[in-house]
Amino acid sequence: MERFTKTRVRYADTDQMGCVHHAKYFEYFEIGRTEYMRQAGCSYADMEKMGYFLMLVDVHATYRKAVGYDTEITIKTRVGELVKTQVTFLYCVEDEEGSVLCEGWTKLACTNEDGKLRRIPEEIREVLKGDEQ
Amino acid sequence: MERFTKTRVRYADTDQMGCVHHAKYFEYFEIGRTEYMRQAGCSYADMEKMGYFLMLVDVHATYRKAVGYDTEITIKTRVGELVKTQVTFLYCVEDEEGSVLCEGWTKLACTNEDGKLRRIPEEIREVLKGDEQ
Amino acid sequence: MERFTKTRVRYADTDQMGCVHHAKYFEYFEIGRTEYMRQAGCSYADMEKMGYFLMLVDVHATYRKAVGYDTEITIKTRVGELVKTQVTFLYCVEDEEGSVLCEGWTKLACTNEDGKLRRIPEEIREVLKGDEQ
Amino acid sequence: MERFTKTRVRYADTDQMGCVHHAKYFEYFEIGRTEYMRQAGCSYADMEKMGYFLMLVDVHATYRKAVGYDTEITIKTRVGELVKTQVTFLYCVEDEEGSVLCEGWTKLACTNEDGKLRRIPEEIREVLKGDEQ
Repeated sequence: MERFTKTRVRYADTDQMGCVHHAKYFEYFEIGRTEYMRQAGCSYADMEKMGYFLMLVDVHATYRKAVGYDTEITIKTRVGELVKTQVTFLYCVEDEEGSVLCEGWTKLACTNEDGKLRRIPEEIREVLKGDEQ
Repeated sequence: MERFTKTRVRYADTDQMGCVHHAKYFEYFEIGRTEYMRQAGCSYADMEKMGYFLMLVDVHATYRKAVGYDTEITIKTRVGELVKTQVTFLYCVEDEEGSVLCEGWTKLACTNEDGKLRRIPEEIREVLKGDEQ
Repeated sequence: MERFTKTRVRYADTDQMGCVHHAKYFEYFEIGRTEYMRQAGCSYADMEKMGYFLMLVDVHATYRKAVGYDTEITIKTRVGELVKTQVTFLYCVEDEEGSVLCEGWTKLACTNEDGKLRRIPEEIREVLKGDEQ
Repeated sequence: MERFTKTRVRYADTDQMGCVHHAKYFEYFEIGRTEYMRQAGCSYADMEKMGYFLMLVDVHATYRKAVGYDTEITIKTRVGELVKTQVTFLYCVEDEEGSVLCEGWTKLACTNEDGKLRRIPEEIREVLKGDEQ
C-alpha cells in the first residue's frame, strides 16, 4: 500500500545550485515514513515511548529532477521487505506536476534505547505486514 | 579574552540566494563556543557528562556581508555577562580578508538533564570569569 | 493582522538534548513568513522571480519551552515595522496546547539579485501595510 | 589514492536519538570530496567558477556505529569510477579510534549551469584519473 504526504521545500533546504540539497531528501523520506506510520495507526513517536527505536542501517537515493524553494512536493511511501528486526521503506518524491524528483529506500533496524537489536513489536509488524509489497 | 576557531562553509550551509543561510550562523556560533570552552579547558561535551546542560534562552544576530560555499571563516568568541545560572557568549564571524560577516550573541541557562536551572559549576565559572568582559 | 501556519517537527530538527535545535526556529520563522506572504497574496517565490530579494539584516529569538520530534507547531506571523526598503516580521511558535515555544523577529532588507538595496515594490507594500502593526 | 580530512560533529548534526542524524553523513561526504579535490589541486569552488557543476545522481550509505556531539571524525575519500561525464567518490568515515561509522558512495554528473551534461574538463579528469581505483 502506498501512502502520501505533502510538504513544501523550505528556503533552508536549497543550496547555492538553486535547488534542494541532495541530503534533504533523506529528511523528506523521514517525513514520508513518519506520516506513513501515523496513517497506518502506529506513530513512530509512540513507538519510541514504548522503547523501540528504528535506526538507519542502509540508505539509497537516485535523483531525477531538481526543484527549488516553495515547490510543493508529494512523498509517496511504501513498505518493502519486513523481517524480524528490520523494515525497509521505499519512497518516491514528486513535484506538483507528478514529475519524479527522487526515488530511494531506507533500511531500518529495530533496537532498544541502547542500540541493541529488538524484534519489531507484533502489533506494528501486523500493521506493516498488511501493507508489505 | 577572545578565542578563535576556523571552519569552512559547507555546500549544504548555502541556500539558493547563493550564500550561507542565515540560520547557519547559529551553528557557527555553536562551533565558536564549543572551541572556546575546549581551549579554556572546560569542554562542553564533558560538562554534559557531568550533568550540566547549557540551554539557549535568547539569541541575536546581525548580518553584514554574504559569502558562499568554501569560504574559510574565522569565528571569534568572547564571554559576555556571567551570572549564577547564565552565561552570554559574543561572536564575530569573519571571512579570509577579515571582513565581518555576522555578529551576534547567545544567552544560555545552565540546567540539569530535565531542564531545571542549576548554578554553573564553580570550576567552570572560574575559567569563564577570568575571561569575562 | 496575524496569520497562521502549522507544521510538524522533523526528526532532523531535533538534537541530542532531545528537543528542537534552537537554530531551527529560524527555519520555522521562514516558513511563517512564506505562508504569511502567500496568504496575503504576494508569494515570496514570485517576488524573487520579479527580481526582489529579502535579505536578512537582524534577527532575534527568545526560547520559552522545549519540544521534541513530531510535535505539531503553529507559527503565528505578523508584520511589524515597514519602511521603504525594510520589513520586520514578528513570530510566535506554539505547540498543540497553545504553549509558547519561541518568540522572535526578523528584519529583512529588499535588494536586487546583486544585493543592492531596492524599494519594496508598491503592490507588496500595500498588502503588507494593511497588515502593519 | 585515499585522501583524508578531519572535522568535528556539530551539536546541530545530532538528533534526539543522541547521535549524528543519518542525513548529515552526506554533508560529511561532501566535505570529504571538497577537501579531496582541493588536495588534488582542482578545487570544486573553482570548477563552478569555470562553469562546471557536479550534480548528485545516485548516493548510498551504510551505517556501522553511532557517535554523538564533538566526536572528531576522519573522512577518507577515494575516486571510484570515472567516465566522460560522471565521477563516483567513495567514502569511509571513522571516529578517533579508527572505528568505521559510515561508508558510502556518491555518483555525480558534470553539467553546465543549466543542468545540461558536459564532459568533465580534461585537466580535472587527468588529476582524478591518476587517483582512480
